[in-house]
Amino acid sequence: MKVAIVFGGISFEHEISIVSSIALKDVLKKDEIIYLFLDSSRQMYHIPTNIIKSKLFSSGEYKKFDKVYFQKGGFYKKGGVFSKDKNIDFDVVLNLSHGGDGEDGILSSVLDFYSIPFIAPRTEACVVSSNKFLTKGYAKSVNVNTLDYKYFTKDDKIEVDSFPIILKPVKLGSSIGVAIVKSQEELQYALDVAFEFDDAIIIEPFISGVKEYNLAGTKVNGEFKFSIIEEPQKAEFLDFDKKYLDFSRTSKAKEVDLGEKLNNEIKESFKRLYNTLFEGSIIRCDFFVINDEIYLNEINSIPGSMANYLFEDFQSLFHQVAKNLPRKKHIPITYEYVNKIHSAKGK
Amino acid sequence: MKVAIVFGGISFEHEISIVSSIALKDVLKKDEIIYLFLDSSRQMYHIPTNIIKSKLFSSGEYKKFDKVYFQKGGFYKKGGVFSKDKNIDFDVVLNLSHGGDGEDGILSSVLDFYSIPFIAPRTEACVVSSNKFLTKGYAKSVNVNTLDYKYFTKDDKIEVDSFPIILKPVKLGSSIGVAIVKSQEELQYALDVAFEFDDAIIIEPFISGVKEYNLAGTKVNGEFKFSIIEEPQKAEFLDFDKKYLDFSRTSKAKEVDLGEKLNNEIKESFKRLYNTLFEGSIIRCDFFVINDEIYLNEINSIPGSMANYLFEDFQSLFHQVAKNLPRKKHIPITYEYVNKIHSAKGK
Repeated sequence: MKVAIVFGGISFEHEISIVSSIALKDVLKKDEIIYLFLDSSRQMYHIPTNIIKSKLFSSGEYKKFDKVYFQKGGFYKKGGVFSKDKNIDFDVVLNLSHGGDGEDGILSSVLDFYSIPFIAPRTEACVVSSNKFLTKGYAKSVNVNTLDYKYFTKDDKIEVDSFPIILKPVKLGSSIGVAIVKSQEELQYALDVAFEFDDAIIIEPFISGVKEYNLAGTKVNGEFKFSIIEEPQKAEFLDFDKKYLDFSRTSKAKEVDLGEKLNNEIKESFKRLYNTLFEGSIIRCDFFVINDEIYLNEINSIPGSMANYLFEDFQSLFHQVAKNLPRKKHIPITYEYVNKIHSAKGK
Repeated sequence: MKVAIVFGGISFEHEISIVSSIALKDVLKKDEIIYLFLDSSRQMYHIPTNIIKSKLFSSGEYKKFDKVYFQKGGFYKKGGVFSKDKNIDFDVVLNLSHGGDGEDGILSSVLDFYSIPFIAPRTEACVVSSNKFLTKGYAKSVNVNTLDYKYFTKDDKIEVDSFPIILKPVKLGSSIGVAIVKSQEELQYALDVAFEFDDAIIIEPFISGVKEYNLAGTKVNGEFKFSIIEEPQKAEFLDFDKKYLDFSRTSKAKEVDLGEKLNNEIKESFKRLYNTLFEGSIIRCDFFVINDEIYLNEINSIPGSMANYLFEDFQSLFHQVAKNLPRKKHIPITYEYVNKIHSAKGK
C-alpha cells in the first residue's frame, strides 16, 4: 500500500510530528511511504523517504525538495513551462501532524475538502478531542466520567480556593502550558504561562499518584479493535522533553491487567467515546482509575507514532482501517427549488 | 470594502446559499461584491456580480466563467501558457455557504488553512453549532438550557414511549429530515427518512405552540452587538420551501419585547454561547420560552442572508466585524528539540 504521511504544520508539536513520522517508516515496513511535509507557513514539500531525517527540517534543507499543492483527489507538483503538473501516486493519507493543524480539524477538513482518503479523525472528532473544554462536555453527553473542572477565558475573574490544582490551556497537547499549582502564590505565574498559549483554560483538582491507563483502538466494519491496556511510566506528569522521546516509540509496551470489570469498563468507555464520531481514525484514550471508577483524562486523536507499540500487529490493523474509511453521504444537488421558482415566475 | 462571498458547496442547502448570497448584494450596497461559487464537486468559479442570478447555476451556465483555486492568502485564476496566474483582489471573505461545507467546519478550515481573513464561525464553532448533539453538550457546559433529548445512532435500538416527539438528523439545517411524530405508528417512517440524511438523530419532546424567539449578534472589540429580538412567524415548524424564501429576506423585522427579565436572559444566554468560540462570526440563536424559562433551540452559525433584517444598520456592523477578526496566536517553530538532540549526539 502507498501511504502518504502528511506531517509538520503550524503546531506547537511540529517537531514531535517530525520524529513521530520518521519513526513510523520502521513500523509500516510493508508499505511504500511518501512523506509530505507542511512547513511553518503551510507550504508542502515532498521529502524523499530514503534520506529523511530530522535535521533536514531544522536546517531548512527541506526547501530544496519539490513543492506540492492540494487539488481535488490528491497532491500535485508544478510542472515546467511546457510540462503538465504531476500528481503524486498514493492509496491513503495518514494525517500525522500532531497538535495544531493536524488535530484541531483544519488539516482533516482540507483533506476532506479535496476528497482525499485519509486516516485520522474527521473534523468533528478533531474538535471535540483537541479542545479540553469540549471534550468534557462530549464525554458527559456519552456518559463517560471526567474529573470535575472549571473553565475560564482570559477576561474572567479567576478564583481558586482549594489546592493543588492542575491548570491546562484548553487547546494544546503534550503538556504544553500545563502546570500543577500547589498554592495561591503559584497561581498567577501559572495563569500567565497558560494564557501565553491559549485564550481559555480549564482547572482540575490535582490528584497525586493517580493511576493512568492508556487504551488505543479503532473500528473496522462496525467492529472495535483494541490494543492492550498500558500503564504509562510517568513522573508527576510527562513534560515536553519526555513526551518528545515518547512520540518516537516503536518497541512494544507491556500489558496491564486491571481485572475483568475495569478492563471491560475502560473498553466500554472507549466505545462510547469513539462511536461514531471517530470513524476512520486510530486513537488512544487515556483514563484515570480512582476508587475503582473510570475517568477520561484525554483523547489523543493522533497519538505519537499512532500508538503502534500498543498493538500486536499494527501493520495489518492499519491496512484494515485504510480499506474501511467512512464514506460521506451523497448529497444530491438538483436545483429543484430554483427551477420551481422559475417555473412559478413563468420563465 | 471588497467582500468575496463564497457560497454553494456540497450541502443540502446549496440552493438556499445561492438565493441568500444574491440577496446580500442589495444589503451590502456600499461594498464591492465578488461572487465565488463552489459547485457540487467543489470546483470554484468567479461569477460576475452584475449578471448573477439563480438560473446561471441550475442551468450549468456558471461553468463558462473563470475557474478559481485556493492559494496562500487568497484566490487565484489560472493564466495562459505565457501569462502568470492572477490573484483576486478582496479585503475579506464572507462564508455564506449554508449547511454542509459552510457550516460543518470544512470551508472555514480551508479558509483558515490558506490564511484567508473571513467572517464566519471558525472550525470549532462550526462543529458545535452544526451537530445538534454537540450543541446540546456545549450549551450545557456554558449553562444554557436545552430541551431534554435522546441521542441515537443508526445501529441503536430505538424505543420511544411518549409522543408527540420531534425527530431530527443531528447534522442538517433548514428542517431537512425533521419530523413531528405523533404516534408509534408514525415512528418507523420518520426514522427511515431521518437516517436517509444522517447516521445519527436526536429526539426531543414536541411542545405544541411553544414560543420561539430569535436573536442575532456578534462581538466587536470585546463588546457584544445585538439585533432586535424577533418572534418568527411559523407554521408548526418551517418546512424547506418556507425556509427557502426566508433565506432571501432583506426587509426589516418587527421587534418583540419580552420584558426586561426575559430580554436580558436571552442576551445573557447568547453571550455565554458566543463567548469566545464564535468570534469572527455573526450568528443567530433561536430560543424557546417555556414557563418563563429560556431554552436554546439552535445556533444558526451562518443565518440566511446573515439575519441582516434583524439589525438596524447591518452594513456598518459588517464592516466593524471585518475589521476586528480574531487573530490566531503565533506559534513559533524553532526546532529547539531537534537541535538539542543533534547536539547531544554530537552531530
